[in-house]
Amino acid sequence: PEKTKNKVVNVAGKANKLGRDEPRRIIHCLKVGLALTLVSLLYYVHPLYKFFHESGVWAVLTVLLVLEFTVGGTLGRGLNRTFATLLGGALGVGAQHLAALSGEIGQPIVLGLCVMVLTAAVTFLRFFPEMKARYDYGLIILMLTFSMVSVSGYRDEDALTIAYERLLTIIVGCVIALLVSILICPVWVGEDLQRLIAANLEKLGSFLEGFSGAYCRISGDAQITIDQSFLQGYKSVLTSKHSEETMVNLARWEPGHGRFLFRHPWKQYLKVGTLARQCSYKIEILSGHLASEIEAAQEIRGEIQESCREMTRESGKALKELAATIRTMTRSTSMDFHIENSKGAAKNLMSLLETGLLEDSTTLLEIIPAVAVASTVMDIVTCTERISDAV
Amino acid sequence: PEKTKNKVVNVAGKANKLGRDEPRRIIHCLKVGLALTLVSLLYYVHPLYKFFHESGVWAVLTVLLVLEFTVGGTLGRGLNRTFATLLGGALGVGAQHLAALSGEIGQPIVLGLCVMVLTAAVTFLRFFPEMKARYDYGLIILMLTFSMVSVSGYRDEDALTIAYERLLTIIVGCVIALLVSILICPVWVGEDLQRLIAANLEKLGSFLEGFSGAYCRISGDAQITIDQSFLQGYKSVLTSKHSEETMVNLARWEPGHGRFLFRHPWKQYLKVGTLARQCSYKIEILSGHLASEIEAAQEIRGEIQESCREMTRESGKALKELAATIRTMTRSTSMDFHIENSKGAAKNLMSLLETGLLEDSTTLLEIIPAVAVASTVMDIVTCTERISDAV
Repeated sequence: PEKTKNKVVNVAGKANKLGRDEPRRIIHCLKVGLALTLVSLLYYVHPLYKFFHESGVWAVLTVLLVLEFTVGGTLGRGLNRTFATLLGGALGVGAQHLAALSGEIGQPIVLGLCVMVLTAAVTFLRFFPEMKARYDYGLIILMLTFSMVSVSGYRDEDALTIAYERLLTIIVGCVIALLVSILICPVWVGEDLQRLIAANLEKLGSFLEGFSGAYCRISGDAQITIDQSFLQGYKSVLTSKHSEETMVNLARWEPGHGRFLFRHPWKQYLKVGTLARQCSYKIEILSGHLASEIEAAQEIRGEIQESCREMTRESGKALKELAATIRTMTRSTSMDFHIENSKGAAKNLMSLLETGLLEDSTTLLEIIPAVAVASTVMDIVTCTERISDAV
Repeated sequence: PEKTKNKVVNVAGKANKLGRDEPRRIIHCLKVGLALTLVSLLYYVHPLYKFFHESGVWAVLTVLLVLEFTVGGTLGRGLNRTFATLLGGALGVGAQHLAALSGEIGQPIVLGLCVMVLTAAVTFLRFFPEMKARYDYGLIILMLTFSMVSVSGYRDEDALTIAYERLLTIIVGCVIALLVSILICPVWVGEDLQRLIAANLEKLGSFLEGFSGAYCRISGDAQITIDQSFLQGYKSVLTSKHSEETMVNLARWEPGHGRFLFRHPWKQYLKVGTLARQCSYKIEILSGHLASEIEAAQEIRGEIQESCREMTRESGKALKELAATIRTMTRSTSMDFHIENSKGAAKNLMSLLETGLLEDSTTLLEIIPAVAVASTVMDIVTCTERISDAV
């Protein structure tokens, strides 16, 4: 019992954290409950029941399957489901008529062949990456509706009515899901995407700033008590590709709202995201150097280190400015200033190296990688700047 | 029309490529068609139809929704669907009885409340990452079945029969899907996972080997005609995290088969995958150096370069041996030999650097990053070796 109690406390803690991290999740749960109660009225209210009969159950299913966390997700699934049902129903009725021409015995054979060919073809379509990304759900529903209408029509003789009722209830379900999704605390995936990309840039920026501080203190005194939290932040950027792509796919379904127009250039976010990821690979290396570099602090490193610190600090600030630019959709002038500063520091460093100030090679082993990385980071910063112009 | 024709040719080419890259996809399409034809027999064959009536349509839906590309996927969805239907049906019947106690007017209110509370709670459960990964589909089906049974039971008065028939047909559908999935050219996701991890290591290995060759030729003569194909291979490793995790989740559903026992340590693959990804970040940096390093080839680089080449070549070979180890599940002795070699080369290089052979700092700028990276790669190799012991 002690163990069970611990487990329960553990799960409760996790649930609490989930809700607190993202209160919209709790609102979403209530939205699902509300939408379902609304759609159940089709059953409970007598006049509505008389109109829809048992097929009202499809509206219930539709609400549950279509109502997603984000508006883009709901709209995408709703449109997929509606049009796929329409197309699948029409094809099913067509197959039914075709089969009816083939006589008593031929009918099931023709129907079976139709079902087999169509499902095999649609299953193959699902392997296309472009189809998978945006229309996967629609393709499944297309197969479902076609099979249901054509197969069950064999016994019911009334495939047209089945197809029609199904379509009608599905539209009702989609409309309810969509209204609940948009009218009650809508979660726009486009805004989330923008926030994610900006947060990623900010994480990189605060790593660079933190790196600048830590790098200084290492050479200053031996007792190192650095706040290590900035070291972990950027890790999530390394593997953000999948979630960015999913969000862009969903965002493309969303209609214009607020500051986002209908054909908002979502793909630009992907580009910025990719550049941020490339930058994070370099930061991963940088953080490896930070961990190993605590030993061997020598006089000669002073000047190089100063340039490195300058570069990381300034490019960190520039990245944070970039994040703010993406968030507010207006360019600030101080960003260019920071980028210029970091470029200047890089130039200083290059000339420092070219004059051959250094002869002790053991210390170089630790410094130069950081320099190389910092200059690459700068390249990335300027590259990101170019992209953000396009936003 | 010319444009349409081009588009058709384009799509046909893509389809051809999809099928040729992975012939199992075509087999999968045929399997779906076959399974659906089998399940349609519930409708076409008279005695079966008399037994299942219209609820046979649920078996059709089940086959379409459960039959996935891999055995693990099919089994996971099938089990999720069966148990969720069982649980949802039981809860639905319970809610129905509870509501019946509350009289004519109270009944819809109690039912509505039950549906609202249960769906909100289950929706919240879906936000837990652990639940999302393995039981997402089951949770959706749980909500669906519960709502259907309790809501439609309000009019039909016979919720128990609905729940029972639904469960029975779903089991029939799952069994058909599973038999088709396992008996006809099964696609074991565990084997695919093993192959993916091994292929990733191999890509890293061939990059390192190719790097070794290219690095040599750059210093040798100015005319560079290197085979650039190895430069792209490792890119897919950078972003393989999501697909690896998905595959591990699916693989855990699979029963033991062939050389894989039931409780195969799938998580080890994730560990190896993570290490390989860390290694690929370093390789990304290395490849950046390769692109920029074509200028400034000086005499003094000779010896360092020799060590670098030795290190990358040997660790590349070791990674390839590791890939073979994972594939055949037996350790080869030559791997340790390669790792020892690369370690030796690293030691040589370190002593070379410590003796302070170099004084010209401009060339160092290009060489030392490669050295640092190569030694990190070696760390990764030894780390991977440790992991592969556990497999």
